[in-house]
Parts: sequence; C-alpha cells; structure tokens
Amino acid sequence: MSQKSSTSAPSSPLRADAERNRLALVCAAAAVFKRSGTGAPLDEVAREAAVGIATLYRRFPDRDSLIEAVFEAKMRDYAERAGAAAERALTEPWAALEQYVTHIMAEQSADPGFADVVAAPLTGSRVFLTHHRDALASTITLIDRVKAAGVVRPDFEHADLFLLTLANTGLSHGAGKSAQEASRRLCAYMLESFKPTPKPLPPVPRAWAASSVRRSRAQIAR
Amino acid sequence: MSQKSSTSAPSSPLRADAERNRLALVCAAAAVFKRSGTGAPLDEVAREAAVGIATLYRRFPDRDSLIEAVFEAKMRDYAERAGAAAERALTEPWAALEQYVTHIMAEQSADPGFADVVAAPLTGSRVFLTHHRDALASTITLIDRVKAAGVVRPDFEHADLFLLTLANTGLSHGAGKSAQEASRRLCAYMLESFKPTPKPLPPVPRAWAASSVRRSRAQIAR
Repeated sequence: MSQKSSTSAPSSPLRADAERNRLALVCAAAAVFKRSGTGAPLDEVAREAAVGIATLYRRFPDRDSLIEAVFEAKMRDYAERAGAAAERALTEPWAALEQYVTHIMAEQSADPGFADVVAAPLTGSRVFLTHHRDALASTITLIDRVKAAGVVRPDFEHADLFLLTLANTGLSHGAGKSAQEASRRLCAYMLESFKPTPKPLPPVPRAWAASSVRRSRAQIAR
Repeated sequence: MSQKSSTSAPSSPLRADAERNRLALVCAAAAVFKRSGTGAPLDEVAREAAVGIATLYRRFPDRDSLIEAVFEAKMRDYAERAGAAAERALTEPWAALEQYVTHIMAEQSADPGFADVVAAPLTGSRVFLTHHRDALASTITLIDRVKAAGVVRPDFEHADLFLLTLANTGLSHGAGKSAQEASRRLCAYMLESFKPTPKPLPPVPRAWAASSVRRSRAQIAR
C-alpha cells in the first residue's frame, strides 16, 4: 500500500469526515436559505449543521461558494428550461412563454433563496455565470420569437422577465406560507397583461434596457 | 418661578437638547429605513444621528416606536387617500382605483421603508393600527364599488391589493435606482390585467381570503 492511498482514498476516516461535514453544511444552508434567503447569517448555517463556524469557512471560504454548492443543480436546470422554451417558441410561442414563466415563478416562490439567486446573479462564481449567461441568451431568443409571432403586446420587452422576477421575490419573501398561492395568481395576472393590447406602457427602467441584454444579444449575433 | 418650569419648559437647555436628539434620530432613521428598509440595524441609525445607541433607546424604547415616528404622517396620508378613493369610486370607479393604486405603488417604490410598513402592518402601535384599519375599511369599500360597477374582472378581489403591495416591495428592495421606473411599469401591467376578461385566475391565498378583511367587512356592516 502506498502512503498516498492511506490519506486520500474515499474510505479514509479523515476524508469521509470532511465529506460528511461538507454535505451537512450544504443541507443546512439549503434549509436556512429557503427560510431566510441567501443573506441569512452563516453562523445559523453552522449551528444547523452542528459544526463550528471555523469548519464552515474551511469548507466554504465565502458565502458565494456556499450559495453555489446549494443552487448549482437548480441553476443548471433553470438554464436548460430557458433553452427548451426558446426551442418550443419556434412552433408554440405563447405556450413556450407561459410554461417558462409559470415554472420559474413557481420555483422562486417555493424557495426565497433561489428567488434571490435568480434576481441577483452572483458575479463571483464562474459556474453560475455560465448558467446565467446561457439562460439569458435563451430567454432573449424566446422573447424575440414570441414578439415576432405577435402573441405578446408590441411594447413587451425582455426586461419584463426581470420585472416579474423581482416582483415575485417580494411575494417569496413577504407572503410567508401563502407565497406559492400568491405567486400563481400574480403569474396569471401578468401573463394576461402581456397579451396584445393597445394602451402603451411606461418604458422599462433605462438601466435595464441597456447593459447585459444588449451585450448578450451582440454575442448571439456573432 | 416654580421648580417645575425650570426643568420642563420648552426653553430649558436640557429639554431642547433632548428634542434635538429626538429629531436627529427620526431624520437619521428616515434616511436609513429608506436605504435599507425598516429592518435596518438600529446602531446604524444612532451612528447617522451622531448619538449613542443608549440615547436612541432612551428616546425610542423599541424599533416600532421609531418606525411610527418616521412614518406616522405618511400612514395618515395613506389612510386619507384610501378614503378619498372610496368616495371617488361612487362616480368614477375605474379612475378611483387607478389613481389609488398608482399613488400607493409610487410611494412604496420611492421608499423601501414605507413599502415594508404598508406590506407588514405593525401590530404593536396603536396609531398605526388605527390608520391601517381606516385604510383597510376604505379599500374594501373601494373594491366593492369598482366590482359593482363592473370595471374590473369578476374574480378580482380585495386581496389583490395586498398581492400588488408585496410584489412592489420586491421591486422597491431589489431594483435599486430603477425601482420607481420598474414600479410604474408593473403598475401599468397590473392595472391592465385587472380589467374585465374571461379567463379565470387561480384563487387568492386561502389565508388572505379570510381574517382581517372579513372582520373589517363585518365592522363596516354594523
């Protein structure tokens, strides 16, 4: 037996212990973030995982790395669903928009932590950034297609998805046990209001109309 | 000269000093709550008012008393506007609803602290409770009248005002400098979606359908 295998093999007690701690921290963080959002105190996470705060920081040097461990799979799923919606919009534009918006709002309202992540992308994390960039590119294609098909009002814009996300975050954090029911109703109202209608809307916030969407659109065009 | 006048007259230096501290605290709290909502750390308020935390607690024994001092006038105005909207709904139901919703959403998005207060009434404060009760009674009358006039969809409910308030709180806290612009757009979308239309909505959260509105309606009927 080499010396290496005795310290790094998966069966090593030390390694198994570290992995157990890591898993306990991720599960505890998932529960705490779901309760209080991603800004929750990290010592609450450590307490719930029954480890010291020093152990938490040894496994996860900053808050972002813990957020990423908790929500990575959900973010990947989010990006994949956006991609599927963009595809579906080719043949069934309204159904594609409806299904995408309904799904993302349900996921958000079921988990305030996830609502935070979707509303405020982490700039520090490369994995998250990739998912976010993919989701952004797909939703731009989705909105271009539903607009081209004429199933939404002409002044509907991509930024309205962000508007919806932030509004839903308000329910997710403020409506307590009623969050999911309230979100379903908000979703139905907003989808109704996206349909073609003559009265013009106030413009989207100037800051939203610029920046990331324009950049992402330029990338798609290349 | 009595001994009393030397300690309690408005011109007494001690009294003037206390009053100055109180005003500094209220102004500092207004600024801090506007920046970070009513859950902001109170030591930030004390620091901004350039007084010690002990002085803050001497003037305002708990957070609610400070919130009340900051928002009392705005809450009274809110209740009065609800009353005016209920009156106006007798002759111009849609305009009354539109004006009320537009105003309250604008006030909320301009001040995250006020958004918090409207979304989560303080149960501890008697003055606030009175304003809240008045506003609630008036908005119930308002919604009854717009529904009776047929200018909103038949499944529109009073609880949808609360839905709107919470959604707007999400923008107020999450949209930063774009909050007011974003809120105007959400407001226009939602008003559009309140108009009569055939497709039924999911029900309002069961918990919202009950409780305070029913109680207030019973009080109005008496």
